[in-house]
Amino acid sequence: MSRHTPLLQQLIDALRILPGVGPKSAQRMAFSLLERNREGGAHLGAALNAAMAKIGHCQQCRTFCESDLCHICADPSRAQDGIICVVGSAADQMAIEQTGQFKGRYFVLQGYLSPLDGIGPQDLGLDILSNTLAKHNVTELILATNPTVEGDATAFYIAELCNKQQVKVSRIAQGIPVGGELEFVDGTTLSHAFSGRKAF
Amino acid sequence: MSRHTPLLQQLIDALRILPGVGPKSAQRMAFSLLERNREGGAHLGAALNAAMAKIGHCQQCRTFCESDLCHICADPSRAQDGIICVVGSAADQMAIEQTGQFKGRYFVLQGYLSPLDGIGPQDLGLDILSNTLAKHNVTELILATNPTVEGDATAFYIAELCNKQQVKVSRIAQGIPVGGELEFVDGTTLSHAFSGRKAF
Ligand SMILES: [Zn+2]
Ligand SMILES: [Zn+2]
Repeated sequence: MSRHTPLLQQLIDALRILPGVGPKSAQRMAFSLLERNREGGAHLGAALNAAMAKIGHCQQCRTFCESDLCHICADPSRAQDGIICVVGSAADQMAIEQTGQFKGRYFVLQGYLSPLDGIGPQDLGLDILSNTLAKHNVTELILATNPTVEGDATAFYIAELCNKQQVKVSRIAQGIPVGGELEFVDGTTLSHAFSGRKAF
Repeated sequence: MSRHTPLLQQLIDALRILPGVGPKSAQRMAFSLLERNREGGAHLGAALNAAMAKIGHCQQCRTFCESDLCHICADPSRAQDGIICVVGSAADQMAIEQTGQFKGRYFVLQGYLSPLDGIGPQDLGLDILSNTLAKHNVTELILATNPTVEGDATAFYIAELCNKQQVKVSRIAQGIPVGGELEFVDGTTLSHAFSGRKAF
């Protein structure tokens, strides 16, 4: 029978927590590090331990952060237009930042409302968001949640918060992706694209 | 401009040493651990540090091992037929073990001869292999190196060692796809390649 030594098996099992890594690629990763890059492997181990222990959340927008405020919340120029963009994850925030178009601040939910999984408003920091809407000079809240059932439910909940506090709320447009081909776009997206049509 | 905090950037950079992990999936992995599985991330960090520091090589066959002898070299029944199978990597050894067909011992090169990269016979432990051929009761050496230029060159070199010591040498049949990598070949093909081996 084929079997690994205990430490090797532990490493292969541990690598499988990474998204998209199955048993075969976990084994390939372990062998690759042991054969060719033990220094890199030890460096990755140290980076993981440091990151898991020391990366927290921005007290204002909840994105990943090693200090109280992230560099965006700490930048007064990002507060000038009073716009807050609500996203589901730090990865979504990165994607929007990379467009270079948005100049306001963010609120990072780090998940979506999901009663079945026990994820409620408190878990998404919506009390913090509510405080921000009340105290800061927020001119508009843009919902950039995922166009999924949970993303939609979360968007509706946050829109209610905005209505209560009389803050203007909008949602990013749903439609056909730029550069995409119409015949390959799914029906729901096409319907949204039609109902969201604008004067040309 | 989009940018990460120092520890997060260090983690993303460190993850990119894993085979098949580009900047985008490294970021996805880092966010996934931070969002959903910090305990798993810290566990992976500890597993990496332990594995890189403590996994060595079997003194007889050079496979990855935490003690002097691996479980195959330490098993007298694996020495009965006196056959040694030479493979390029521990992953190749695993693939052959998983067929359950081969009952002998291994020698794991952990690489191939590559003069341009400064990899010579000593780096592959061919002095150890030569000693084994001289001292142990070796009835046959099976070459199961990759069917690549470097795998072929290494096979020729080892065949010469066998000829000098009058040890019968064979090579697994070209049932394995030419240019393919042994690690990714299915078990049935590997079994056929073994039974169809020819004098080298
Ligand atoms: Zn922030
Ligand atoms: Zn061994």
